[in-house]
Amino acid sequence: MKDIEEITAKLIEFRNERDWEQFHNPKDLAVALNIEAGELLEAFLWKSHEEAKPEKVKEELADVLAYAFLLAEKYGFDVKQILLEKIGKNAEKYPVDKAKGTATKYNEL
Amino acid sequence: MKDIEEITAKLIEFRNERDWEQFHNPKDLAVALNIEAGELLEAFLWKSHEEAKPEKVKEELADVLAYAFLLAEKYGFDVKQILLEKIGKNAEKYPVDKAKGTATKYNEL
Amino acid sequence: MKDIEEITAKLIEFRNERDWEQFHNPKDLAVALNIEAGELLEAFLWKSHEEAKPEKVKEELADVLAYAFLLAEKYGFDVKQILLEKIGKNAEKYPVDKAKGTATKYNEL
Amino acid sequence: MKDIEEITAKLIEFRNERDWEQFHNPKDLAVALNIEAGELLEAFLWKSHEEAKPEKVKEELADVLAYAFLLAEKYGFDVKQILLEKIGKNAEKYPVDKAKGTATKYNEL
Repeated sequence: MKDIEEITAKLIEFRNERDWEQFHNPKDLAVALNIEAGELLEAFLWKSHEEAKPEKVKEELADVLAYAFLLAEKYGFDVKQILLEKIGKNAEKYPVDKAKGTATKYNEL
Repeated sequence: MKDIEEITAKLIEFRNERDWEQFHNPKDLAVALNIEAGELLEAFLWKSHEEAKPEKVKEELADVLAYAFLLAEKYGFDVKQILLEKIGKNAEKYPVDKAKGTATKYNEL
Repeated sequence: MKDIEEITAKLIEFRNERDWEQFHNPKDLAVALNIEAGELLEAFLWKSHEEAKPEKVKEELADVLAYAFLLAEKYGFDVKQILLEKIGKNAEKYPVDKAKGTATKYNEL
Repeated sequence: MKDIEEITAKLIEFRNERDWEQFHNPKDLAVALNIEAGELLEAFLWKSHEEAKPEKVKEELADVLAYAFLLAEKYGFDVKQILLEKIGKNAEKYPVDKAKGTATKYNEL
């Protein structure tokens, strides 16, 4: 079994043991992901990235990923496939010759 | 090669072709992840989860995951391992007998 | 003195007594505002809006507003004026005859 | 009439003309505020705060404030009062002698 499937299976098992599927509708999963994204950001507040504690980043990033995988599972998305599709779309929005070395957003390129 | 490694390799290749590593410090990656998390949330704004468009959810979730994988790579985190560790910690914070069927936060259980 | 000026003066006084202006650059203020916005959202996680505790909403909303006023002050924005300008712009993006009774985003109206 | 009351009255008028109160439950207002907070953050992405465009900051900050005022109105909060209360609480969490010149969070002071 592949990585993402294995992680997702563990997350689902954890959820089901606690009878939490009733709370895990897609909207609340997206809300939960945003809350965790905010906690991840807190690792960098008032400081340079060198000063952020990797342990804090690790914990909060894991929470973000957990909700991302649970949300993908809810919709039956194949995580690898949706990432590869998105990379393909971004390659069109950000062609190498225009985007190289600049952080400008695609609609201003 | 495993799923997550393969996706991450593609993301790094995309980034390097555009010479974007200079912008991708951990703090800005966490900022980018938060912006994408907000766009994901927009799929559910003013509506029930049934009304959200899966296509929009898919695109924004892919963006969130992309920055999550890039941030993990920056710190050298093994995504599978940090998820499994976090599930272990959460199992202690939310023991089945106390947490079953309730959405109460661990510090109020 | 008007409300917003009075609140802002208090926030600046609080900040200066603690010698915190050194941390309060606009980027970190925007980061802080996002973290607090996430905490506000937590008041509604896994629940309907009727179940959210007003006391929690009040505290987190106050934090969001504090950083919003501090950020406005940094740029010398007049909060009342920028709000009235924005309402004017939104009135053009969402004309009453098209937008009435629908939550559709302006670019899809 | 005071600043905040005047702004809030305008926001309510704008909302009611469009018959949008039906969408503006507290949970979705908090969701909307988070989305706008993410857009505000985008003004600073991949750049130092000096490079952010004040015009973009102004627009997004106005959106954040609009939802914050609408949410306060929903709960009948007096914005000035909740801010002054919060400043009072923070003064206890961050006493000047301990907090001066340090960005450390109160629970680690």
